Amino acid sequence: MELSSVRLHPGGRQARVPRGTTLLAAAGLAGVELRSGCGGLGTCLQCMVQVKEGRVLPESGRPAPETAAGWVLACQARVDGDVAVVIPESSRLGEHRVLLDTGVAPAGITCGLPVPGYAPRCRRLQLSLEPPTLQDSADDWTRLGNRLRREVAGQALTVGPGALRQLAPALREGDWQVTVTWVELDDRAEVVQVSPGHHALPALGLAVDIGTTTVVVHLVDLLSGAVVDREGSYNRQSRYGDDVITRIIYAAGEDRGLACLQEAVLETINGNLARLAERNRIDPAEIVLAAVAGNTTMAHLFWGLDPRQIRLEPYIPAACHFPPARARELGLGIRPDAWVLTLPAVASYVGGDIVAGLLYAGLTAQDEVCLLIDIGTNGEMVLGNREWQVACACSAGPAFEGGGIGCGTRAMPGAIERVRVDAVTGEVTVGLIAGAPPLGVCGSGLIDALAALRGAGVIDRAGRFRPEGGAPGLRRGELGPELVLVPAEASGSGRDLVIGETDIESLLRAKAAVFAGIRTLLRAVEFDLGQVFRIYIAGGFGNYLNVPGAVAIGLLPDLPAEKYVFLGNTSVQGARLVLLSKEAGEEASALARNVTYLELSADVRFMEEFQAGLFLPHTNLSWFPSVRD
Amino acid sequence: MELSSVRLHPGGRQARVPRGTTLLAAAGLAGVELRSGCGGLGTCLQCMVQVKEGRVLPESGRPAPETAAGWVLACQARVDGDVAVVIPESSRLGEHRVLLDTGVAPAGITCGLPVPGYAPRCRRLQLSLEPPTLQDSADDWTRLGNRLRREVAGQALTVGPGALRQLAPALREGDWQVTVTWVELDDRAEVVQVSPGHHALPALGLAVDIGTTTVVVHLVDLLSGAVVDREGSYNRQSRYGDDVITRIIYAAGEDRGLACLQEAVLETINGNLARLAERNRIDPAEIVLAAVAGNTTMAHLFWGLDPRQIRLEPYIPAACHFPPARARELGLGIRPDAWVLTLPAVASYVGGDIVAGLLYAGLTAQDEVCLLIDIGTNGEMVLGNREWQVACACSAGPAFEGGGIGCGTRAMPGAIERVRVDAVTGEVTVGLIAGAPPLGVCGSGLIDALAALRGAGVIDRAGRFRPEGGAPGLRRGELGPELVLVPAEASGSGRDLVIGETDIESLLRAKAAVFAGIRTLLRAVEFDLGQVFRIYIAGGFGNYLNVPGAVAIGLLPDLPAEKYVFLGNTSVQGARLVLLSKEAGEEASALARNVTYLELSADVRFMEEFQAGLFLPHTNLSWFPSVRD
Repeated sequence: MELSSVRLHPGGRQARVPRGTTLLAAAGLAGVELRSGCGGLGTCLQCMVQVKEGRVLPESGRPAPETAAGWVLACQARVDGDVAVVIPESSRLGEHRVLLDTGVAPAGITCGLPVPGYAPRCRRLQLSLEPPTLQDSADDWTRLGNRLRREVAGQALTVGPGALRQLAPALREGDWQVTVTWVELDDRAEVVQVSPGHHALPALGLAVDIGTTTVVVHLVDLLSGAVVDREGSYNRQSRYGDDVITRIIYAAGEDRGLACLQEAVLETINGNLARLAERNRIDPAEIVLAAVAGNTTMAHLFWGLDPRQIRLEPYIPAACHFPPARARELGLGIRPDAWVLTLPAVASYVGGDIVAGLLYAGLTAQDEVCLLIDIGTNGEMVLGNREWQVACACSAGPAFEGGGIGCGTRAMPGAIERVRVDAVTGEVTVGLIAGAPPLGVCGSGLIDALAALRGAGVIDRAGRFRPEGGAPGLRRGELGPELVLVPAEASGSGRDLVIGETDIESLLRAKAAVFAGIRTLLRAVEFDLGQVFRIYIAGGFGNYLNVPGAVAIGLLPDLPAEKYVFLGNTSVQGARLVLLSKEAGEEASALARNVTYLELSADVRFMEEFQAGLFLPHTNLSWFPSVRD
Repeated sequence: MELSSVRLHPGGRQARVPRGTTLLAAAGLAGVELRSGCGGLGTCLQCMVQVKEGRVLPESGRPAPETAAGWVLACQARVDGDVAVVIPESSRLGEHRVLLDTGVAPAGITCGLPVPGYAPRCRRLQLSLEPPTLQDSADDWTRLGNRLRREVAGQALTVGPGALRQLAPALREGDWQVTVTWVELDDRAEVVQVSPGHHALPALGLAVDIGTTTVVVHLVDLLSGAVVDREGSYNRQSRYGDDVITRIIYAAGEDRGLACLQEAVLETINGNLARLAERNRIDPAEIVLAAVAGNTTMAHLFWGLDPRQIRLEPYIPAACHFPPARARELGLGIRPDAWVLTLPAVASYVGGDIVAGLLYAGLTAQDEVCLLIDIGTNGEMVLGNREWQVACACSAGPAFEGGGIGCGTRAMPGAIERVRVDAVTGEVTVGLIAGAPPLGVCGSGLIDALAALRGAGVIDRAGRFRPEGGAPGLRRGELGPELVLVPAEASGSGRDLVIGETDIESLLRAKAAVFAGIRTLLRAVEFDLGQVFRIYIAGGFGNYLNVPGAVAIGLLPDLPAEKYVFLGNTSVQGARLVLLSKEAGEEASALARNVTYLELSADVRFMEEFQAGLFLPHTNLSWFPSVRD
């Protein structure tokens, strides 16, 4: 087959691809990841590139926009012979800010292992065995197993293929002194490592958070429980779409779609793993156990399960509970026979990441009623205590991830994350994620902007610009009134960064959905906000949230600041708990089965609450006493 | 790297190999398997080839024999530039005769499933499930699992990754009518297949016998227990040596030795599997379970376990009991997540093939004391009944496989398997395995020859040619007196096929070892031969054995012919039982633990018995009343 050369500038990377390949795919092959929020549908307009040499063909029936100056959507333009393409910074998928987690629980809050003095899942013994003789000629595994059965009393004992292969040489090299490591699974203990002599080397495990946007991997000492190192990156599935719905559509609709998404997340995890291994000078094959948490769609894609029912009524996952599987079976680049534990989910939109969060927050260990909230494209929330838990999920839309917002961007270098508006002059000042000139506004910046615009009186309670607000950057744009946050000459994209009324509408819908979810949970159990003892904020987005701003726009309830606890990346922390403790794993399974899930798509109360939330801060001002109107 | 071309005649196959590659390896790469009884040590002289063009270098320090006429040992000659080589028929590894087994138990003997009306390991249900709704929104696996738990009462229930991936599409394609198949493992039941609609397609399993010489594979319907088809071939490990000891040395001593042997047996099994699949028009991925039986060395090599301790005192295997493993883990080419069950062994030289034989013979279901004998390079024997079993193994040497015998060959086309000597004229007549002119004498032919020579008075009781025996083909060869069985002009090798006194000595040692093993077992439990109710002859060699001849030379005890039962390939039959029935698997495990193993290498009684057996039929003629002296 004749191949065409695609050269990408700046940088000069090259790919050779069959005629008809999209520029988006060609760039991916050349190792240049483009933004593609819509997963290649040609709707998000994030993947604009400029063709400098050669010719591309538009997707049939859909003209490539701006072809005059050579600008095309990379996802819609197909290679027709050798081409050279310029990729502007704004179309590149930069490194997303990743919440690796500090590993330190907030002061005064009991987070972490659900049972103090928990029994570790991974155990180790230094043994001295009697050498065999012609009279005592049991095979090596029987000899070792008989000795170990005392230690794993009551449990079946087995041995993994890797450990079985180590056994005979290790026993002889150590002159019948060996160090044996095993892990406890649901129904049995399995020897995972046999090494010669008596040593105290770490036994390594991997805790993985597969987020829709970012993937975080913790390298964990299974014996001490300590986090040895952390690594994270954006999820390479992003090339198939920003949100879970776009990825489900890609998985279900494209040839090899599911396989591509599975490979992408494995590439992501294994890439992080490779960096961890290099930095810590370990062989990934030393890692003998892994635990993985992610939302239900991420778990399906990781497992290669058809996710399409997740987005179709009545929203049924293929599985909420996953058997342990060998790393080799799932493609995880650790020891091939290491067990991989997948955190169980509650429902299609309350996944293993939330179960991990509940575990880490210790919600089921508490008498007082608490609320856990994880805000992203979806807002997931769980209300409960040790006796009962009720959960729901509401679609906040992509606004909080910067999607569907003209100047929106994900939390990456160059993203505006803080916005101040001078109450007198209406002047706008911005705070940036360091590393690049301003490229757009990320979710926490948008919430800040909304609160600041309302605080300064630039917009009214319905989110409309007040002509009398008198902000200097106010103007009429193509889609209606808009405010310039950063002028073209100061921005990294060479264009004005603006926020318009249509953007504000998206944000209002997003925040109204989250608050309506919280209200619906409370109404379902007939609880008052005042009875909520504590609100745990989980997840990367929540971690960078400015609570007064979030309360000011009515995203979060108007409660004293001390009731809010930011737990950081609870998904990876919960995965670490399951990695370290069989009890935590059992707790996670029980939790996933016991949580009552409210499906909001058919809930009239939710729709009422949502409508009432489309104001700043809310229709019912009595719920926001601290917010001055 | 510069490659040399190696062209092989007749046939003209070609390989391109690095300079320095042995002709043996080059032939293997070209798909031409040479005989290599010694595993490439240059001692068995089976791999003679003639270099016609080009140059080879001898193995350093060891001159390649017969270089004058271009004859070299392929294992010792290294390629030095392009060469053309002629491979005589006698150096080719022909297709070994393989005992696929008839699948029919001998009349009057209860063989097979240990418990009549056994509970099958694999079960299937046709289910009609309630479709989910917004109110009843359990995930698919929970929905199916809840329904199935009633059926697997008391057992943990899990689902394999393959079945989990089938689940969501199958439920919807079948409109909530599905056919579910599961298998029972030691500690749980696992769903292995979910397909849409209600059907009665077979659920397929694989029973595998890994013999040192041949590999046999049965395709089995897991629901009915029927054998769908059979296939077999020689074990491709033969290129690394004929017997287990040579292969252990190769595995332990060569770079990647163990990996080569593991790959070779997998190639063999997967090759048989491919032929089965093609003939039966199935996809190997439809096979959801396998059971594998082999001797302890074969099991180690299949698993990739270091086998070196098997041949070193005190002869300790790495494992006699093997956990279930996924096919992907072991490299078996069936469904990647199919479980592979490995039959347990008793000791280094009483392996899973013998446990399979005991299972199939139903020895542990009987009150009467029976004897099971499997004769090959090793003779393995078990004496016992339902209450006790005692086993031993004796090294018979390679004579019964045709090894170490001047005119010996394995049981393949052209092998002489019957020999008659006219008592008056001393004329020799032979019977052949069809398909080629006479190339050598296989094990059953050698036993026949020995019995016939003794019967006709050509040799004396010590195995020496009697000058007065008067056989016309008697002459003095390089190694002493020898008898021409087939003259050069009638043989396929162009050389006289002869049997000499040194050959007869090897055969005497082999038969004495087997008989001494039987005697030692009897003495250990203070039993008389007369008390033995039945003798089961297991294995491929035994199946082609002529009992009167074997009794006449003192290989087998002199008991009435009706006491002998030929069970055929009991290894594959026992594997099939474990494949079909969890009880059979448990029975095999219990048996492997309970059999008392006698280590003969340190047994004085055995040495006495061995010495006494070096006569025809035996020193003690009273044990062989039916054999006229």
